Amino acid sequence: MRDNPLLDLPTPCLLLDLDILKRNLARMAAAVARHPGVALRPHMKTAKCWQAAELAAPGRGPITVSTLAEARHFADHGFRDQVYAVGIAPAKLDAVAALNAAGASVKVITDDAEVADAIAAHPGDIPTLIEVDVGEGRGGIPADSAMLEQAAARLGPKLAGLLSHSGHSYAGRSAAAMAELAEAERAALAGAAARLRQAGHAVGIVSAGASPTAAHAARLDGITEMRAGVYMLGDLFQAGIGTHGIEDVAVTVLASVIGRYPARGAVLLDAGALALSKDRSTEAGPRDWGFGRVLDLEGRPLPGEAMVTRVHQEHGEVRAAPGATLPLDRLAVGTRLRVAPNHVCLTAAAHPRYHVLEGGRVVAVWERVNHW
Amino acid sequence: MRDNPLLDLPTPCLLLDLDILKRNLARMAAAVARHPGVALRPHMKTAKCWQAAELAAPGRGPITVSTLAEARHFADHGFRDQVYAVGIAPAKLDAVAALNAAGASVKVITDDAEVADAIAAHPGDIPTLIEVDVGEGRGGIPADSAMLEQAAARLGPKLAGLLSHSGHSYAGRSAAAMAELAEAERAALAGAAARLRQAGHAVGIVSAGASPTAAHAARLDGITEMRAGVYMLGDLFQAGIGTHGIEDVAVTVLASVIGRYPARGAVLLDAGALALSKDRSTEAGPRDWGFGRVLDLEGRPLPGEAMVTRVHQEHGEVRAAPGATLPLDRLAVGTRLRVAPNHVCLTAAAHPRYHVLEGGRVVAVWERVNHW
Repeated sequence: MRDNPLLDLPTPCLLLDLDILKRNLARMAAAVARHPGVALRPHMKTAKCWQAAELAAPGRGPITVSTLAEARHFADHGFRDQVYAVGIAPAKLDAVAALNAAGASVKVITDDAEVADAIAAHPGDIPTLIEVDVGEGRGGIPADSAMLEQAAARLGPKLAGLLSHSGHSYAGRSAAAMAELAEAERAALAGAAARLRQAGHAVGIVSAGASPTAAHAARLDGITEMRAGVYMLGDLFQAGIGTHGIEDVAVTVLASVIGRYPARGAVLLDAGALALSKDRSTEAGPRDWGFGRVLDLEGRPLPGEAMVTRVHQEHGEVRAAPGATLPLDRLAVGTRLRVAPNHVCLTAAAHPRYHVLEGGRVVAVWERVNHW
Repeated sequence: MRDNPLLDLPTPCLLLDLDILKRNLARMAAAVARHPGVALRPHMKTAKCWQAAELAAPGRGPITVSTLAEARHFADHGFRDQVYAVGIAPAKLDAVAALNAAGASVKVITDDAEVADAIAAHPGDIPTLIEVDVGEGRGGIPADSAMLEQAAARLGPKLAGLLSHSGHSYAGRSAAAMAELAEAERAALAGAAARLRQAGHAVGIVSAGASPTAAHAARLDGITEMRAGVYMLGDLFQAGIGTHGIEDVAVTVLASVIGRYPARGAVLLDAGALALSKDRSTEAGPRDWGFGRVLDLEGRPLPGEAMVTRVHQEHGEVRAAPGATLPLDRLAVGTRLRVAPNHVCLTAAAHPRYHVLEGGRVVAVWERVNHW
């Protein structure tokens, strides 16, 4: 190993800065701790790795997952209390029941009457949250709809609570805007829970959230838990909307320069569409970083506000911002750089594992549970 | 197993129709066979699987790869003659030399003088093609530049030939336009090869191509081989520019309906940004299919010109084209559908393996060599 261990890793690969991860976790834990009685149920869809879950949910506390593969992985590592927060398809009920028969408590979600019937009729243990739409317009029964009571009645004793997702809070551009959306979600979801309880249904879990609302909610009475995931790792989109800074992005892609083109002021990296993803989230944000912002090996932004302007499958073209210039003399072929992702959920999913850094050293390799 | 084996696979997953793959391979083989003396060197970056390579390069003939992981995988399966067609970083030379010392013949590419020096100085067997830019503006030395001769001189006996990529041919919108680009590439690359030979350099391989130009080139004299990859599997973008039809798309994503929303005329699938990728290639094509065109279980387009209009990490929202309606009565939660990809290279890379169909039955499972 040379002085800098990042010179010996194969490129492209995924780096995870443990110091930043821990700082992000502490900040969110403190934000949710402002609300006594409200639990944080971190969403592992972003990190997808049990070592990160150990830090995010100390004592193997409650977590959220987005696939059966995650549910199995985390159950295998002792995380019993899970919410599988993607509408369940009936063909997946057997797998959930098998995990629960083996000791887990994986809760599913649905907003569909026929699925509620299938769950009620299933012989297994399948605690179920009804998904409530609080304005995102993705999944869920509207909070004021009588279909909520109907679904609760169909589920019977398998009803475990209600769940909403404030994905539209990512459109917020200030702490105040996010707090406002958090309050709208809280009022709608807590109101729906109160209505169901008045009708005689047991509503144990009232689960809300997304990273922006979990960080900025002013009050959460009536809510039992907040779910959030992307806050752990951070990305350029989150930095753009102000939920954290560029220095809080814990995941970067390590890449090598494979071509240098002074005539057009560009270099090519060996990190392209597959290593970075084609996510263009920052296009809709206050600052467009193309397919990622380019940093030096120490994680400092490269001069010229360098970004990945174009990707092919295994090529990423780096250019300076308009009017600026790249330091091409420092970018010989073979030079190693880091790319901060637009949307870390997508970029991280392109890689099988993290090379975990602490104080600039690679201290561990953590495998991700990708796929389904 | 029920009557239809697609009802028993976990969703989302990747399907590969072997009949369509074989038809696509036969068509391209015939197109290149029009040019005596020109070999087809199929690019395995799309299929990334040795079973597909066995069909695409009969007798374990020459192939193209895009990563060291592919180079190792295919060498392990007996494919000796490879071109690794992404500019080489010096740190990867040892790995290439090791493969070649073990019996492979992996050729690398570069357009950089310092890398040419590093290759020349390396003790291993590293046959090298100089990358030539024929108009794409990605990598390569311009065909008319004296830097070509300089790079050839630096490589010395390790010079194995020249390589160009006509990626800009995907902007073609007719067979005539693609033939014109193919001729421009041919003339530039063959001219550069002739010039180097006159200067005393041995130029064995003159490698050109991309799927559109390989299919439509009128003449290829001076070219020794054509590279093409996406033709094997096909996608909506390729269908849009007329290199094949929708019935020639060999890869689809099998997905389940997880929510049904009559009020907004939509359903949700369990295939979202991770299972489909966020590639939006068709946005620039003649017909925008969002994040994919939705087909029924038999592979027929769903009524209403259904497409995936919006994706979240594990959710894909399906709507009809403007003015049309989805057959919502046929789309109960649990219903299985297939999604034809915008860009198959990206969508396939999201999955670890293919479920291979022949005559509607699952006849095999083929593992992909993803990552680096």
